[in-house]
Amino acid sequence: MTTPQPRAAVRRMKEYHPPLGGRDGLRLDFNENTFSCSPRVLEALAKISSAELTRYPERGPLEALVAQHLNVAPAETLLTNGVDEAIHVLCQAFLDAGDELLLPVPTYSMYEVYASSTEARIVTVQAGADFRFPLDALLAAITPATKVICIANPNSPTGSVVSREAILRILASAPHAIVLIDEAYFHFHGETVLDLIGRHPNLIVARTFSKAYGLAGLRLGALIAAEEQMQWLRRVISPYSVNSLALACLPAALTDSAYLDWYVEEVLAARREFAAALDELALPHWPSAANFILVNIGSQHAAFTAAMKTRNVLVRDRSSDPGCDGCVRITIGTREDTRAGIEALRESLAAINWKRDSEA
Amino acid sequence: MTTPQPRAAVRRMKEYHPPLGGRDGLRLDFNENTFSCSPRVLEALAKISSAELTRYPERGPLEALVAQHLNVAPAETLLTNGVDEAIHVLCQAFLDAGDELLLPVPTYSMYEVYASSTEARIVTVQAGADFRFPLDALLAAITPATKVICIANPNSPTGSVVSREAILRILASAPHAIVLIDEAYFHFHGETVLDLIGRHPNLIVARTFSKAYGLAGLRLGALIAAEEQMQWLRRVISPYSVNSLALACLPAALTDSAYLDWYVEEVLAARREFAAALDELALPHWPSAANFILVNIGSQHAAFTAAMKTRNVLVRDRSSDPGCDGCVRITIGTREDTRAGIEALRESLAAINWKRDSEA
Repeated sequence: MTTPQPRAAVRRMKEYHPPLGGRDGLRLDFNENTFSCSPRVLEALAKISSAELTRYPERGPLEALVAQHLNVAPAETLLTNGVDEAIHVLCQAFLDAGDELLLPVPTYSMYEVYASSTEARIVTVQAGADFRFPLDALLAAITPATKVICIANPNSPTGSVVSREAILRILASAPHAIVLIDEAYFHFHGETVLDLIGRHPNLIVARTFSKAYGLAGLRLGALIAAEEQMQWLRRVISPYSVNSLALACLPAALTDSAYLDWYVEEVLAARREFAAALDELALPHWPSAANFILVNIGSQHAAFTAAMKTRNVLVRDRSSDPGCDGCVRITIGTREDTRAGIEALRESLAAINWKRDSEA
Repeated sequence: MTTPQPRAAVRRMKEYHPPLGGRDGLRLDFNENTFSCSPRVLEALAKISSAELTRYPERGPLEALVAQHLNVAPAETLLTNGVDEAIHVLCQAFLDAGDELLLPVPTYSMYEVYASSTEARIVTVQAGADFRFPLDALLAAITPATKVICIANPNSPTGSVVSREAILRILASAPHAIVLIDEAYFHFHGETVLDLIGRHPNLIVARTFSKAYGLAGLRLGALIAAEEQMQWLRRVISPYSVNSLALACLPAALTDSAYLDWYVEEVLAARREFAAALDELALPHWPSAANFILVNIGSQHAAFTAAMKTRNVLVRDRSSDPGCDGCVRITIGTREDTRAGIEALRESLAAINWKRDSEA
């Protein structure tokens, strides 16, 4: 019997199953805020009326507020159901048969997931063992078919950064391509290219409320781009994709900059402590500008991840990411949570009788 | 200078701008619940902790709960960011170049919006002046290229229904095509084909929490389909698209069936009152199985809609929908809200000196 068949591209897609089930314990696996969102967000939530729940969300006024906060125009700002939806609509709006998505790897998995549901070809450029941004290789890989280039800055899972000068060279070298600079981890790095919006029509910047703001559950992201690009994204996105509760909480999150600053300072202090502990343990790792550190455990990566889980600490095995063999990504939270993570890490290394691969 | 160009399909898309801005007053324009969601939902919302906001949503356990409620298997159930996202991923998973989307019209606009962002061709079958389901014409329009057929039951903006027998004939006549039966307005009609899931691998049913449940702001929809189709939808959809607050409120909404029953009874009683008032005013309208009635105002439709707005009552001019020239769709809510709507309608007709087109 004939049954309906999906698109060939969908049939070819890899299945993506993030380990979401039963995430009890200290969650150092998804780069969430480990503590809390601003208490003002909870106050805003407590004031929600049932009338706000019954009506369809209206994101326009909140886009204007975010635009003001980011010092861009409302027409240049699009709120999305997390950055995931932002990447989804960007791929759908721009990637056609014959086009290429250009991707320095390793990087955030969802660029490839969403691009692979289009008809475009995915071209990857591998970073070296130091995970520095592979600028020359990326520039060399730009072709007339390059339509979208996705760059996370800071990058995940490595924590490495790309300089403003490098971004400017890419923007100039690929004027026919959208260059997405995904600043999901901006607050832990402090550098942005948002000020280039309006000067470079091919630049799109992404921001999220899921990381430093501690609002991953609300699903709230933003894209910022020149109006001439935004018009296409607005055609593809649902007018109601951002829920009313996220919109109601947004002003409180934006206003409480003292809370955001406090949390970011906690993470930066904890990151220094964590890096020092790794050095002391002679565990190879990479300098990170984000709220996580990639650690090279080596061939015992799976046993290590399991040993951490036994101690109720969740970390993310990234060993199958390109160039990340043996690597585990560990989220940095408050100093208290990070110290608990270090303690579990010491115990786990002892429990698995960890040795450097060269010594094993 | 070269700037990035969107896909040709996206360039051809019509812009869709629902009139969402400044919707103050009595909202009879979007078929929302006019009163409230269950008070138990607000209680559930008050119990949310900041920890739930900081972590990524996990929809699996709630999919199991909805599956149990609908008497289907968890693997056959997918929660979505409103039915809008459901339609979006369905179109993206199945509609390829050379495929056809088959659509009886007039119907819900978003089928065409999302299909037009794919490479498929959209084939419409026009209902007659009575807006009865055009079964014979639809069956005749099925071709080997038909890949998706979208049917809203009850339909919007007409309120008309399609029989179980007709659906069975369509399922049998197009085994190679997905047949989406969108039961967004199910509660006001009472008939479903959910029990056919498992027996017809090409059937997909959609449900929503935006209408009878009064939760449009939360963005919560569901698709139910055989597991062999669901696997493709799960590949395309984001694993985090349904927010944590929607998931936290869902059990309360499902449990409070007394509240749901009360609201549905209110609407059914109000629908009878509203239809009687329209008859008394000699305003042509169509029998509706949903929480709205389509009224044929005629050539004065725009003046009527404006006159209603002056009286703080929002209604939806559907005059540009295929076959709906002169028609305005009015949501039926509680009896109290509906009586206020009838009062505004009488005043508006008087204010615009309304006449039947034949008498004008």
